[in-house]
Amino acid sequence: MIRKVTISILILLTFALARLDAQSARVNQNRIEANLLKLATYGQDENGVTNRVAFSDADIEARNYIISLMKQVGLEVSIDFAGNIIGRQAGTLQKLKPIGFGSHIDMVPNGGNYDGCVGSIAAIEVIQTLQENNLKTRHPLEVIIFSNEEGGVMGSRAIAGELGENALKVRNNTGFSMGEGIMRIGGDTTRLDEVKRDRESLAAFLELHIEQGAVLDEADLDIGIVDGIVGLNWWDVVITGFANHAGTTPMNRRQDALLAGAQFIQVVNEVANQYEGNHVGTVGRIKALPGAPNVIPGKVVLSLEIRDLSTDKIQMLYEEMKKRAIKIEENTGTSFEFIALDTTGKPALMDNLIKEEIANAARALKLSIKNMPSGAGHDAQDMALIAPAGMIFVPSAGGISHSPKEYTSAKDMANGANVLLHSILALDNKL
Amino acid sequence: MIRKVTISILILLTFALARLDAQSARVNQNRIEANLLKLATYGQDENGVTNRVAFSDADIEARNYIISLMKQVGLEVSIDFAGNIIGRQAGTLQKLKPIGFGSHIDMVPNGGNYDGCVGSIAAIEVIQTLQENNLKTRHPLEVIIFSNEEGGVMGSRAIAGELGENALKVRNNTGFSMGEGIMRIGGDTTRLDEVKRDRESLAAFLELHIEQGAVLDEADLDIGIVDGIVGLNWWDVVITGFANHAGTTPMNRRQDALLAGAQFIQVVNEVANQYEGNHVGTVGRIKALPGAPNVIPGKVVLSLEIRDLSTDKIQMLYEEMKKRAIKIEENTGTSFEFIALDTTGKPALMDNLIKEEIANAARALKLSIKNMPSGAGHDAQDMALIAPAGMIFVPSAGGISHSPKEYTSAKDMANGANVLLHSILALDNKL
Repeated sequence: MIRKVTISILILLTFALARLDAQSARVNQNRIEANLLKLATYGQDENGVTNRVAFSDADIEARNYIISLMKQVGLEVSIDFAGNIIGRQAGTLQKLKPIGFGSHIDMVPNGGNYDGCVGSIAAIEVIQTLQENNLKTRHPLEVIIFSNEEGGVMGSRAIAGELGENALKVRNNTGFSMGEGIMRIGGDTTRLDEVKRDRESLAAFLELHIEQGAVLDEADLDIGIVDGIVGLNWWDVVITGFANHAGTTPMNRRQDALLAGAQFIQVVNEVANQYEGNHVGTVGRIKALPGAPNVIPGKVVLSLEIRDLSTDKIQMLYEEMKKRAIKIEENTGTSFEFIALDTTGKPALMDNLIKEEIANAARALKLSIKNMPSGAGHDAQDMALIAPAGMIFVPSAGGISHSPKEYTSAKDMANGANVLLHSILALDNKL
Repeated sequence: MIRKVTISILILLTFALARLDAQSARVNQNRIEANLLKLATYGQDENGVTNRVAFSDADIEARNYIISLMKQVGLEVSIDFAGNIIGRQAGTLQKLKPIGFGSHIDMVPNGGNYDGCVGSIAAIEVIQTLQENNLKTRHPLEVIIFSNEEGGVMGSRAIAGELGENALKVRNNTGFSMGEGIMRIGGDTTRLDEVKRDRESLAAFLELHIEQGAVLDEADLDIGIVDGIVGLNWWDVVITGFANHAGTTPMNRRQDALLAGAQFIQVVNEVANQYEGNHVGTVGRIKALPGAPNVIPGKVVLSLEIRDLSTDKIQMLYEEMKKRAIKIEENTGTSFEFIALDTTGKPALMDNLIKEEIANAARALKLSIKNMPSGAGHDAQDMALIAPAGMIFVPSAGGISHSPKEYTSAKDMANGANVLLHSILALDNKL
C-alpha cells in the first residue's frame, strides 16, 4: 500500500515537475535574433537591403537555410506539391491530429526582414525550446513555412484547397508565374490537389507575426491577439487608349491611357476616403505602354486592391470606383476593363479557445495584451478554413512594414515566441 | 571654226541630254516598298509587330542589312564613333563639300515601320537611281543613317557636337545606356569628339520623313515642306513618399508617391491645355516602386516632355507645372524632384534655299505641297546646327505614328524619294 502510494506520489511529482518545467520553459532570445539576422542575409544587397520575392534565387537559398535549421532541431522535413516546407515531430499520442504553426519567409519587393520571418524563426525556436526542456507534446507538431505568401498566400490557399487554376498564371516581379514558381521551389503543379487538407485535419493552427501597423507600438503593448483578418480583393485594371507620337498629336486629339489611369488612381483614393470605416483601397503597381517619354501611352495596366472585414463593403466600394471610371472613359477617349485576379482572401475570424489560450499564456508571462483585427492578409486566413486558427501579433516599430525600415526588437520577438510556445503547450493539453 | 562650233554644240547637246536624263529620272517604287518591308522583318514578332529599339539585337541586325544595301549600290561604308552608318560616294568635283541626306532605322518601343525607315530606304534608293540613270553629281554625297534617334537624336547630336557626357548615362528599355549602346553598335565613347563636324562642313543636309501627324493626309496633299522643327525638353520627375503595407496603413496615414504622381500627370495635362498654342506636354513613362499591389508606392519616377517652337514657352510651361507640384507635395506628404535630362532639342529653322528647291522639285513632279512646322524632333534639327538643312514630309495615314498602325503608301514613299532625288540634283547644281 505504502509502496503504491509512494509510486503514485512519484508519478504525480513527475507530472507536476514536468508541468513546472513546461511553465518555466523560455525561448532563447539571442538565438532567435541571430537566426533572423542570418535569414536576412539571403538576398541582401551591398546596401544591406534584402530582396527576396518568392521564386527568386534568394528565396530558394533562404528556403534551404530554413530546411537546414529544421533538420538541426530534428524535424522530419518535406516539401509539399505547393512548395510549402513542412517540418514534422511526432507526439506521444500519435493518433491525435497535429497542431500546426508557422509563417512565411518570402518578401514583397523592397520589403523588410521581420514580416513572416519572425513567425518562421520562432516556430523552429519553439521546437528547439521543447527539446531543450525535455517537453513532449501529446499532439504531433507541424511547423509550416508557407510558399509565396506575399504573392497571394499561395501555399496556404493550396492547403485550404482554394488555389484556382487562374492563380497559377499570376506573375510576380521575378518574371515567373506561380505555376512556374511552384516547379522552381520543388513543388508540382500537376499534383496540387494532393496538397489540399480536409477540414479539421489539424487540431489547431497558430501564426506569430509582426503587427505591420502602429497600434501596439504606439500604445506600448506587448502582444496583439487577432480577432479576425480582413478580406482582400485584387483586380487588374486595363485601360486602352491609343499610342501616338507625343510631338505631332495635339492635346485635344489624344487618347492618353496614362492620363485616364491617373484619374482612376485619384478615384480609388477619393472613394476610399469618402466612406466611413477601416477599409483601404490601393494602387501599388502600374505599367504604361509602350513606356517611352515621347509616346502617348496607348495602354495602362494597374493593380487595384480593396480590403475590409466585410465582403459586401469591398464589393460596394469596387462598384463605386467602377462607376466613376465610366466618366473617365468618356473624358479621355479610353476604355476600362476590370479583371478580377484569383488572389481573393475572404475575411476570417480566429478561434475563441485559441484566442483565450493566447491571452492566458501572455498573462502568465506578464505581458500586456490587446485584441485587434488584422488589416493585413496572412496564411492563417486560409488555414482558418480547415482548422481552428489563432494569430499572435508583436509590435512593429512605428507601424512600418513592407519596407526595409521594418523593425521588431529581439525582446518583442522573444515575447511572441514565448506566447506561441505556451499557447501550443496549453492547447496540447486541452485539445 | 566650224569644228569648234560643232564641238560646242555637241557639248551643249550632251549637257542638255544629261539634264533631260536628270529630269526624267525616277526612283523605283516597288524596290522602295520591298526594301522597307524587308527592313520591317528585323525585330518582327509572331504577330507581325516589329520591335527595334536602338542597341537591341534587332537594331544591330537591321543596321547590318542597311550596310549590305549601301554596299550593293557601291557606297563606301563606315561607322563613325557615335555609331552612325555613313555611305559615301565621290563627286565629280571632289573639292566641294558633300551633300548629306538620310534618316534613322531605330524605333520607339512598340513603334511603326515607317518613321525613319522611309527616309533611310529612300536615301539609298536615290543613290541607286542616280547610278541607273548615269547621273554624276558635282558634290560628294553622304547617306547618313543616324544611331539612336528615338532615344534623344543621339547620332546627329554627336555630329553637331551637342552630345554631352550626361546623355551617355540615359538608358533605354533595352537596359543599355547610350554609352553602352554606342560600344555595342561599333562606336567608341572615348572618341566621340572626333565625330563632331565643323559648321558648314556639309553643303546641305536633307531628310525625308513621314509627317507623323494628320495634316497632309486629311487635306489629301502629297508633300510637306518643313519650315522648322519644334524644340523639346525632357525631365525625370522623382516623387518620394513612404512605402508601407497597404493593409495596415489607414488612408489618412499614407504618403503615397503614386497618388502624387497621378495628380501631377493631371497637372501636366491641365497646364498644357490651359495655354494657347501648339505646344504639347506628355508623361509617357512611369515607374512605381516597389511595384506590388499590396504595397503603397514609396517612390515614383515619371518622364515629362514639353515641346514648342519657342524655348521660352517651354520654360514657362515647365515652371507652371513645377509650381503646382508644390501643392501636391503638401497634400500627399511627398516630395518632388525635377531632373533635367540631357536630351534637349532646340527649335530649328530650315534653310530657305533648300525649302525652295524642295518646292520646285515637287512642282516639277506635279505633286501638291504644303509648308508646315514639325511637331516631332528629327536628326535634321541637330544637323541644322552645322549645315543648311531641309526636310520633306510625306503623309502618315490617319496621322498615326509611334504605333504599329503607322502607314504610308508606296506611292507616297516614292513621291517623297523623287522629291529628295530632284532636290539633291538641283542643289548639286546651285551650291
